[in-house]
Order: sequence, then structure tokens, then C-alpha cells
Amino acid sequence: MNKMLLYLILLLIHHTALGQEASKVPLPSPAQLAWQDAELVAVFHYDLHVFDGKIYNQSQNRINPIADHNIFKPEALDTDQWIRAVKDMGAKIAILTATHETGFALYQSDVNPYSLKAVNWKGGKGDIVRDFVSSCRKYGIKPGIYIGIRWNAFYGIHDFKVQGEGEFSKNRQEHYNRICEGMVEELCSRYGDLAIVWFDGGAHGPEQGGPDVLSIFEKYQPNGLFYHNLQRADIRWGGSETGTVPYPCWGTYNAPSWFARRGDDIGFKPLKYGFPDGQYYMPAMSDAPLRGYDGGHEWFWEPDDEKHIYPLENLMEMYYKSVGRNSTLILGLTPDPRGLLPEADVKRLQEWGEEIDRRFSQPIARTSGKGKQLILSLEQPQSINHLIIEEDIAQGERVRKFVVEGKDDDKWLTLYEGSSIGHKHIARFATQKVSEVKLSVEEAVMEPVIQNLAVTYIE
Amino acid sequence: MNKMLLYLILLLIHHTALGQEASKVPLPSPAQLAWQDAELVAVFHYDLHVFDGKIYNQSQNRINPIADHNIFKPEALDTDQWIRAVKDMGAKIAILTATHETGFALYQSDVNPYSLKAVNWKGGKGDIVRDFVSSCRKYGIKPGIYIGIRWNAFYGIHDFKVQGEGEFSKNRQEHYNRICEGMVEELCSRYGDLAIVWFDGGAHGPEQGGPDVLSIFEKYQPNGLFYHNLQRADIRWGGSETGTVPYPCWGTYNAPSWFARRGDDIGFKPLKYGFPDGQYYMPAMSDAPLRGYDGGHEWFWEPDDEKHIYPLENLMEMYYKSVGRNSTLILGLTPDPRGLLPEADVKRLQEWGEEIDRRFSQPIARTSGKGKQLILSLEQPQSINHLIIEEDIAQGERVRKFVVEGKDDDKWLTLYEGSSIGHKHIARFATQKVSEVKLSVEEAVMEPVIQNLAVTYIE
Repeated sequence: MNKMLLYLILLLIHHTALGQEASKVPLPSPAQLAWQDAELVAVFHYDLHVFDGKIYNQSQNRINPIADHNIFKPEALDTDQWIRAVKDMGAKIAILTATHETGFALYQSDVNPYSLKAVNWKGGKGDIVRDFVSSCRKYGIKPGIYIGIRWNAFYGIHDFKVQGEGEFSKNRQEHYNRICEGMVEELCSRYGDLAIVWFDGGAHGPEQGGPDVLSIFEKYQPNGLFYHNLQRADIRWGGSETGTVPYPCWGTYNAPSWFARRGDDIGFKPLKYGFPDGQYYMPAMSDAPLRGYDGGHEWFWEPDDEKHIYPLENLMEMYYKSVGRNSTLILGLTPDPRGLLPEADVKRLQEWGEEIDRRFSQPIARTSGKGKQLILSLEQPQSINHLIIEEDIAQGERVRKFVVEGKDDDKWLTLYEGSSIGHKHIARFATQKVSEVKLSVEEAVMEPVIQNLAVTYIE
Repeated sequence: MNKMLLYLILLLIHHTALGQEASKVPLPSPAQLAWQDAELVAVFHYDLHVFDGKIYNQSQNRINPIADHNIFKPEALDTDQWIRAVKDMGAKIAILTATHETGFALYQSDVNPYSLKAVNWKGGKGDIVRDFVSSCRKYGIKPGIYIGIRWNAFYGIHDFKVQGEGEFSKNRQEHYNRICEGMVEELCSRYGDLAIVWFDGGAHGPEQGGPDVLSIFEKYQPNGLFYHNLQRADIRWGGSETGTVPYPCWGTYNAPSWFARRGDDIGFKPLKYGFPDGQYYMPAMSDAPLRGYDGGHEWFWEPDDEKHIYPLENLMEMYYKSVGRNSTLILGLTPDPRGLLPEADVKRLQEWGEEIDRRFSQPIARTSGKGKQLILSLEQPQSINHLIIEEDIAQGERVRKFVVEGKDDDKWLTLYEGSSIGHKHIARFATQKVSEVKLSVEEAVMEPVIQNLAVTYIE
């Protein structure tokens, strides 16, 4: 009950001008906290064209309906296998494309006829969203759902708009908007609490001639992340699909939705860096497909594409430049036509999870504390080359500038200087033997609350 | 075997220039013969909007998708009840709209997702086409299927064309054409022999940017009637939806498809009258909805519409002006949201069937014969006021002009003068007491073959 009370107070503070003055920095919602705590998220892309045996061409896929939807028959579908791989990788949230750009829905939709009801697979009774969510719950992974409404090759939707002119087009736009709202209601109401509902490419709202999906989300998923429309974006895109963000990457933004001011006119820099004094809590995510190596960039399974699976070292670099920079890393995974995550991908995710664990699960020393200075004493002088610093972001991102020094014998040496910490900052530096480590916060908006200061040595 | 041989010979004659010279008049195919022998045909219109509780507005229905396809739930559906009414009415062929202008398919389509698979009714397993065909076979009625591809409010098809411009529209047109071909293949291959496959508003062909449905029909339904595209129309529209044609209504036409030369540029007169010297056998049909009385014209069920059911006498007039003029009468029947033909409609059809039977099943006298003159002798002088004359149209429509006289005592009186006979001609005239009736063919292309000359008296 005390925790609940604290949440309510925090929410109150977060949502009132008085509160914002009181806290001086915006505070995350419980969903945003859970999102950042997850650190790693998997997003599964699965759609009709996985089964067509061809190289995926997104721009063509958007304007060319799949000839025969009965190619969809994942005979060995096993979402448990998918989610075990998520678990192995160390992610805490997994997202599935309930619909993507073909318009085909991976569940039993009552409003969109172009769904698993239409195919012969499982006698038209398949529900991969349900399978997926069940597997997530079984393995303690939080499920999220991705909904594509911006493109629909089947129905004839291009960049939110029904093709055509005149009254017919207007009527079909209305119809499509109702289908979208209906799907959002189905997906938000049938499968329990969702960590996130992700509208890819955003969701048009009624003021743009689109459906009203936000109010439906708010009704059924008050505890979830909404991503995103012009009014609301609980997270922001980090400005690339490289799985990385630059440094510093502030967890706050200067508008309630980054989507209202997109890269088209202002460039992606605001998305990448955020605004340290932004009034809105909106951490950046870093997304990339696992099959993004060496010229590849495959959100969907394609034949003979194992060569594009990132090597372990690249994934670790990605980890440093996302999770280590206050950004949640979203990795795109690609089930194949059998309905399984391919063995090579599973193996790489295992290796990666083990490597993250090997590097960070047992630091040499760690501490926590409040205030402008924090000392971490080692039991004996040791070589270190990594720092892990975490603010208690439930209380907001407060640090603006810091320096970390190490004591070598009696001399304090500067190990690292930084600005943003936020949920987590991982710093690498030249190996140094130290007996003590001192974090000095040089600038902060309020009293710094460091929930973790750790050092380690990684070969 | 002799009959089969005869058919083959007739077909050969029909399809060769030599044969046409030999016979001088075009001959009907077996399917056309069966069609004309049926005399009465029922066409059932059933679609999503039957369930919307609103007055049907065809032009709106074409450009306004149905908001929720799950309104479709005919809880008491009983196609046996439909077909018993067809039987009662005396029709021999019954046609069902497998798809109409919403685009919704009343069966388990693998190619069109907008079908009974999409609705919750019967767990998405309903197949009304199958039910319908089974009921037809059970009651000895020949089934036909109506396919609408010219309009599709769901998919965005207007007058055959996908809405929109550019490559996306071109791709969706291709996709839609493949859906149409797929549906035609499903409907022509799954349900056994069909009396007719009816493309309402015609079918665009590949040369017009449409699907190639004719070759699919010809592959699977070599014994059926094809209605219709630019290349082929085995019957012709009679030029109105009043259930009547004018007189004379010749069974032949001057082109292989009337659809290639439509009313738009030449008016409907050629459709109504036909061409006595036309090289193509193509009898006219007369279509009308049962609910077409007093300003009504309802091909679909609507609430509170019983007032538009034609009175018996109007149906009899329609019968005289269609069946009695060498034209097959197609009556539109409207199952309701329960899935039943309404009681009032059933009752009227029963009355009508009984009345046709009462009037024509037991003529006072009848005969048949070849040649320019045919005498029908009555057992005793009797009052008559109806003539029924039928050519053996398996041998072509040969008569061009005739007169019928009646012998009153020793005097021959002209009872009736006419031109076309064809499958059947029913003539009404002032009551006359006669002892003999004489049919004199004044003009004919070949030797007249009269398979029935009957007289009767109807109060």
C-alpha cells in the first residue's frame, strides 16, 4: 500500500504544475520506469510476405498486396521457443507485430477480415497474438503489441490515407478508421495488460482524418506505454535504426509528442539527444534488427540471410551505445516460415545474454547514495575499466554534469567525465588500478539520487 | 446414347459455318434449351446490408462499406425453406448471389477474406452457397450462381476499377483481378454442375484490365450458361426489370454478346426484341423482384416491405408477358435477416404456382406436328380464349409469321395473328366457341416444328 501511495503522489506531482515546480524535473510513469528497467526489448516481425520466398522490399510491400494469403502456414509455430530466446537474451519485454504493412492481422479479428480467420492454417482458428502473450506470461516476459495502421497494401492505405477520390474514398476512409479503432480495442482488451502498444509510423488522429486510437488505449491499457501519435509519445525514437544513440541522450523532451515535430523539418538531432530541460519524460529507444550486419537490415525473415546476423561484438557495442546511454535497446527478431526463430539467431541471442551477464552481473564493487559526492571503496586496489552509474529515475533525471575519479595510491586521477546518467550510464576507459572511486556531480537540478555506482574490469 | 449423339451433332452444326448453312437458323446449346425449358427462375439476393435494418440504397451501397460485417447472423437460416418456395412457384432453376456489391462472399472463400470466414456466425464456418446448392439438389431444382465483380464497396472497386492512381492502384487491380478469378474457380469447381454463372453487370475481361473469368468458367462448367462478358452471353437481358418483354421477342441476336453493344449507344430496343435473323442463339430473360409492386423495386429484403409484394394478378400478367413471349422469367426473392423467405412471399409464390397450374396444366386440347399447317380438333365445340404454341427450339426458332383460326360451325374465324413463337407463345383473345383450331405458318425460315399447339379457356 505504501508503494501504491507513493505512485499516486508521484503521479500527482507529475501531472500538476505545482508538482513540476516541486520536483523541478519531470518524473516517469510506472510504465516508463518498467520500460527503462527492462533495458532490452525484443520485437518480433511476422507477416504474410515471410512466406513468399522473396527478398523483402518495404516500398513494394506497401503498394503490392500479397497474391495469396494462404501461403501463411507456419507448420511448426512455437511462440514458447521465441520467448525462450528473449529470456536467454535477457530482455524483459517482447513485442509482436499484430499487423504490419500488408494489413494482415495475426489474430482472430472481428473487424478486419484480412486476418488469421481468412487462412486455412489451423482451420482459420489461429491466434498468434494469443500464443505470443501466453508464452510471454509463461516465461515472465511482459508482452507488447505493435499495430501498423499507416500502411495497408490490402485495403489500399498509403501513408494513412485511402487511395482514391470523392465520396467513395471518404466513406472507405471512415470504414478503415473504424476497422483500426476496432482492432485497437480488440488488441487492448483481449490479452490483458500490455507493456506497450506501438503504432508504427505513428497513428493519425481524428484531427488528421484518422481513427481515435488514443482514447481506446487509455480506456483499456491505463498502465501501458503509448507509442505514439501527435498528442502522446511515452518514449521517443532515438533517430536511427542502428540500435544506438549518441551521448548524451537525455530522458526528457520539450513536447508531449516528438511525433508532432519530426525529423522532416528539424532533423533527427532532437530525437537523438533529447532536451535536458525538457518538461516531458520521454526516454529514447534504440532499435535495430538482429539481422543488420554487413549491409543487411532485415526486420523480417528472408531466405539465406544468416550472414546478416550481427556478430557478438557488434551486439555488445550496440548495448554500450544504447542501454549504456540511458536508452532502451529494441532488437528485431525474425521468425521464419516454419514459425520458429532460426537456430543461428537463437544461438547468437544466448551468447549475447551470457556475455552481458559475464560483463556486468558481478561488478568488483558497488554502492548507492544521495548527494553531490559518492565514494566507492574497493576492498583492495584493483584494475578497473568500466563504470556503471544509475540514477533513481523514479525521482527524475537530475544529474547534468559529473566527473569520476579513481584513487591510485594517494593520487586522484580523472577516470571519466560525463553529462547524462539517467537510468544507466556505462563508461569505458583505459584500465586503471584504483582503491577508491569518487563520483562528483558538478551540475544537477535537484539533489542527485544514485541508486547504483559500480566498477568492473572487463577483458 | 442416341440423345448424346444428337447433342453432339447439334453442337457441331451450331459451331460450324457449314452447319449454320445447313440449319439456316442458330440452334440452342443444351444449357440454353434447359434454361428456356425452365421458364421460371428464382434469383435470391442476400448480402450484409439485409441485416442493417435500413432501406437499401444501391448507389450508396456501392460506395459505402458496411460498418460491421458481424451484423450478418441469420439465426434461422433454412435454404430448404427457400427452395421449397421455388418448387411451389414452379421454377426449375434457382440462383444465389454468392457475392453482390458489398463484396462479401456467402461461402468459405480462400481468396476473398471478406467472406463467411470473417464473421462469427457459425464460428466462421458457414457456407450458404453450399447449403443453397444442397437444397436445390434435394428438391430437384438446378442451382446457379451469381457473382458480382463490378462493384465492391469493401475493396474499393467502382465499375470494375480499383479506386486510386499510380502503381499502387495498378497492383491492387491485379490483386483484385486474381481474387475474382480465384472466386470464379472456387464457385465453378466446388459445387458441381451449375445451370448458370451470372456476372451481374457483366465481367470485364483481360482486354479491359479485368480478370479472365470466361476460360475458368469454360474449364469447370462446360455445360452451364455463361452470363456474360464482351465475348459471350448465352442469354440476353430483356431490357427492363419489369419481368416482361415486348412482342415479338426473338430468341436470336446479331452478336455473340449483347454486352458488347449495350443500350448506352443503341438503346434497349435490340435487347427487347432481338433479331429474327440473328446468327446467335441468345434468348431474352425477363427479370423482376417479387417485391416490385406499387413503386417498390426491392431485390433485397427490407423492413416493412410486404406491401410491395406483387399481387397474384400482376404476377400472372408478368408470366404472360415473359414466358408467354419466348422469354424466361427470373423472379427476385429476398430472404430476411432470420435467414428465411418471409411467409407472405412464400404464400404468394404458392398461389402463383397454383394459378399457373390451374390455367395451363390441363388445356382443353393439344397437338403437335411439322409443316406449315396444323389442325387441332376439339372433341366437341368449346369456348376458348387462350392459345399456347411451342416450337421445338432444339431445331431452332423457325417461324416468322403465323395466323390462328378457329372453326365456328363451318366458318373459319381469325383468332390471333403473330410473328415469333420460339419456346412458347401464349396468346389471349376474346372468347370464342370453336370445334377446330388451325395454325397456319405464313413465313418460316425452315420447316416449322411445332411441339405443342394447345387451347384452353380461362375465366
